[in-house]
Amino acid sequence: MLDSGKIRFLEKHTEDYGIFIDIDELLYCKKSKYQLVEVFSSKTWGKVLLLDRNVMTTDRDEFIYHEMITQIPFYTALKPESALVIGGGDGGTVRELLKHKEMKKVTLVEIDGDVIDVCKEFFPKIACSFDDPRLDVRVDDGIKFVKECSEKYDIVIIDSSDPFGPAEGLFREEFYQNCKKCLNTGGVLTCQAGNAYMTDEACIAYKNLSKVFKNAGYYFANILTYGGLWGFTFASDTRHYFDDFDKKLYNEKNMDYKYYSEEIHKACFALPPFFRKKLEEYGK
Amino acid sequence: MLDSGKIRFLEKHTEDYGIFIDIDELLYCKKSKYQLVEVFSSKTWGKVLLLDRNVMTTDRDEFIYHEMITQIPFYTALKPESALVIGGGDGGTVRELLKHKEMKKVTLVEIDGDVIDVCKEFFPKIACSFDDPRLDVRVDDGIKFVKECSEKYDIVIIDSSDPFGPAEGLFREEFYQNCKKCLNTGGVLTCQAGNAYMTDEACIAYKNLSKVFKNAGYYFANILTYGGLWGFTFASDTRHYFDDFDKKLYNEKNMDYKYYSEEIHKACFALPPFFRKKLEEYGK
Repeated sequence: MLDSGKIRFLEKHTEDYGIFIDIDELLYCKKSKYQLVEVFSSKTWGKVLLLDRNVMTTDRDEFIYHEMITQIPFYTALKPESALVIGGGDGGTVRELLKHKEMKKVTLVEIDGDVIDVCKEFFPKIACSFDDPRLDVRVDDGIKFVKECSEKYDIVIIDSSDPFGPAEGLFREEFYQNCKKCLNTGGVLTCQAGNAYMTDEACIAYKNLSKVFKNAGYYFANILTYGGLWGFTFASDTRHYFDDFDKKLYNEKNMDYKYYSEEIHKACFALPPFFRKKLEEYGK
Repeated sequence: MLDSGKIRFLEKHTEDYGIFIDIDELLYCKKSKYQLVEVFSSKTWGKVLLLDRNVMTTDRDEFIYHEMITQIPFYTALKPESALVIGGGDGGTVRELLKHKEMKKVTLVEIDGDVIDVCKEFFPKIACSFDDPRLDVRVDDGIKFVKECSEKYDIVIIDSSDPFGPAEGLFREEFYQNCKKCLNTGGVLTCQAGNAYMTDEACIAYKNLSKVFKNAGYYFANILTYGGLWGFTFASDTRHYFDDFDKKLYNEKNMDYKYYSEEIHKACFALPPFFRKKLEEYGK
């Protein structure tokens, strides 16, 4: 009797290199209006969400991405009381924001309602804040939303998929201009910004943000299911990612983070010289 | 006519997860006295060295590992004039040490002479310092060498493979005791210490080092071909990895590093709370 077969998920990060995860059970697979949505279970990572066959989140390491895209702007914004999240249909980013009693209002704009429904079903620990009365969920196009939006927020977070398909416009200068319009004075924007070493997404995002905001920054988190190293951009006209870290608020709140800390807040902005050069010289 | 086939290298980092690299050409494959030594070429990473089917180094990202295992102790040791390297047969670590005119003597103890020969042939930019008159190469067992060694060095670097097969003894307390015996006052030890998040190697190494040295530290570098995040241990009885960074020497030398910098030296020791907890509570 032979061993039974194996289903292996592979995600390429370049033409000939990437990561693999063996699939225990394929739990969900459906083409939504926008993309292929799949959920599988695995021994190492627990449940894994794929959008168009790219890893979006996993049970085991989601805390890294969600803490880092959220707590960095929370402790840097002048008065973090309201937030707009574009994308983020899994609910992890709004969960992190709504941990804070200071947060009075959070608007989530996710283009694909199926993502929200799938995450409520399969990732209840991530999609755990959808009933919070402070949360306003809009199933809508984020690009259109920020263009037409007349409200202002203290934090704007672009928690998108990669700049292909539905998320393509979320890395453009025009979009960042509209996001800036949605920010209060003292406000801060963060965006997921791609596989830093292997693609140009980081450079494109950083360059376009730098045109729109006075202070642009780039920071890292170690996310193994994204290939090991993930990048985020930071932008603000008034707040500096490092000098304006609100140490008093951080100490008072004394939260129990798993990845984020004061030390990580400062360290994550340290860029190796080869990468800093790539970022700064891109497009010149 | 069908497309031709493909040879894909996969390295598991857990039972069901890891990285893959497609092989362009298999350049070398031979069982040495100690291990299976292979070299292949790939589009993304250039030439790749495997020992017992684990990635040891690649043309494209070797600078990250070699700068980080070497420059951290160089700028922290009291008087960095001599170094002992255990393992490191590819030559990258001694290349980094011998970049410094301050280095008067470097001893390399590699158990597997075939690794040195293969790297001289296939990785000439890594194995470029074997003719330096300051270098003393011994093809010998590092464990035996440090046990019997009566000389002292300012820096000891354990540039080994993972703690299986020939490198197993290089993570034990007894070995670290012998390494300490080889250190001058003001000396510093660094060791490669495994895939930090996925294995217990980091914890074992850190715990054993902490028993032997007054100051033990743990630091990270982002090495995608090792799965994304790699760990190193730092140990010294007199020098602190952070407070004793020699800023004056660093500024005077003004070297052109690609990954290492003063900023990285400080940032790489920032550990996420979940990992610090794992390190500190291991074995308790």
